[in-house]
Amino acid sequence: MSSAQRDTDRRTRRRTTAQRPRASLSLESVLTEAVAILDESGAQGLTIRALAARLGGGPASVYWYVSGRDELLDLAADSVLAGVLEEVADVASDDPIAELRTIAHVLFDTLADRPWLGAYAMRDTGRQTHSLMLYERIGEQVMRLGLTARQSFYAASAVVGFVIGTAADMGQELPDAVTSGELDQREYLAEATRQWRALDPARYPFIHHIVDEFSVHEDRDQFRAGLDLLLAGLELQARGAAGPRG
Amino acid sequence: MSSAQRDTDRRTRRRTTAQRPRASLSLESVLTEAVAILDESGAQGLTIRALAARLGGGPASVYWYVSGRDELLDLAADSVLAGVLEEVADVASDDPIAELRTIAHVLFDTLADRPWLGAYAMRDTGRQTHSLMLYERIGEQVMRLGLTARQSFYAASAVVGFVIGTAADMGQELPDAVTSGELDQREYLAEATRQWRALDPARYPFIHHIVDEFSVHEDRDQFRAGLDLLLAGLELQARGAAGPRG
Repeated sequence: MSSAQRDTDRRTRRRTTAQRPRASLSLESVLTEAVAILDESGAQGLTIRALAARLGGGPASVYWYVSGRDELLDLAADSVLAGVLEEVADVASDDPIAELRTIAHVLFDTLADRPWLGAYAMRDTGRQTHSLMLYERIGEQVMRLGLTARQSFYAASAVVGFVIGTAADMGQELPDAVTSGELDQREYLAEATRQWRALDPARYPFIHHIVDEFSVHEDRDQFRAGLDLLLAGLELQARGAAGPRG
Repeated sequence: MSSAQRDTDRRTRRRTTAQRPRASLSLESVLTEAVAILDESGAQGLTIRALAARLGGGPASVYWYVSGRDELLDLAADSVLAGVLEEVADVASDDPIAELRTIAHVLFDTLADRPWLGAYAMRDTGRQTHSLMLYERIGEQVMRLGLTARQSFYAASAVVGFVIGTAADMGQELPDAVTSGELDQREYLAEATRQWRALDPARYPFIHHIVDEFSVHEDRDQFRAGLDLLLAGLELQARGAAGPRG
């Protein structure tokens, strides 16, 4: 049993010692359905009323578990990150940079699958206990590099920020026509490529330099290349910390 | 006169050859008021109706200039980025990495002042002509590094993604109590610090390692340190491209 499940069960048990609104509900089932709504309709689709209806009860059955929509979003995001924490539990490498890379890849892929998640992931670690543990897990790899406390804080925050920020940005950058499903993501890319090729090459030399790459790019490869630049910079800093500065 | 103003004036003139709803309105004034609402109340506060009321007209006076709320948000964001483009117009350095750093700092500071902006900045370069030019401006520095087209595309995207993603993440990560002004940002940091110090040091060694740094950190310094790691990685890649690989 995962620690995520254990925590959820503990909370469920605590609640169930008092009166509970429906025998079939638990915090876990509330969050599972909340995540399902978020995956289908995004953050805008998640209301207490819609969730309650889906669970077959009234709003009170949801308010039994969360104080409101804000806490619900935080806990739903945290329940997804609990899955990331579990997925990287067995990741281990002699090279802390390699281990950081693997954890960052898993986190990014999870965020990329869920455009709503970037905005709520690791937003409030007071409530989001699994997110806090994931930050700790990432930070422990950074600690192995022998940097100062300040450098370590900045480095762990940069890795987390790059993963969440890039995923959130990629999830949001598409116009409404794409997110609503009217326009296929490939068609959108093809249309943007056409617009870029039509620009004046004298005014837009860079755009013309990279438009062929842009036209076939995958968000995931783009993220991984950027992460590698960041990790290369971190490795360089760690080498400077370990030996004499060059 | 900036190119931003020129473009706006051109558009205003084109519109004014036909019938215009109010003599005092122009696309520029519509976007200025839209940005003012966004700065005061965030994206949620910006409705066509609220904007029209502020401009002293009906919704039709706004629909004269934009097709709807989505285009309005894109153009309002683009009008702010036009200011960034102007601010970095005279930035020039023999070192493309230094020039990239300066542009990224200006862009970040602008985004940090406006928590709503990260979500709409550079979202649709078809509509956002100044954002496209800013991306070009950043890309032209990357071009000076002599990388392949693919590396250049990834590098420019990583820099832009890190700036916008980090700013958007920092703008969003604060709980409602802070963004609504109930809780001061310093109080929030103090409260989070107290929670972190109370964690079990055996389970959270990294959190305890960095909590003193966390307690006094500034978002801006944190961003700049992360950017420096990314740029150090990029510089290393450029050195590999210029000379023999080490």
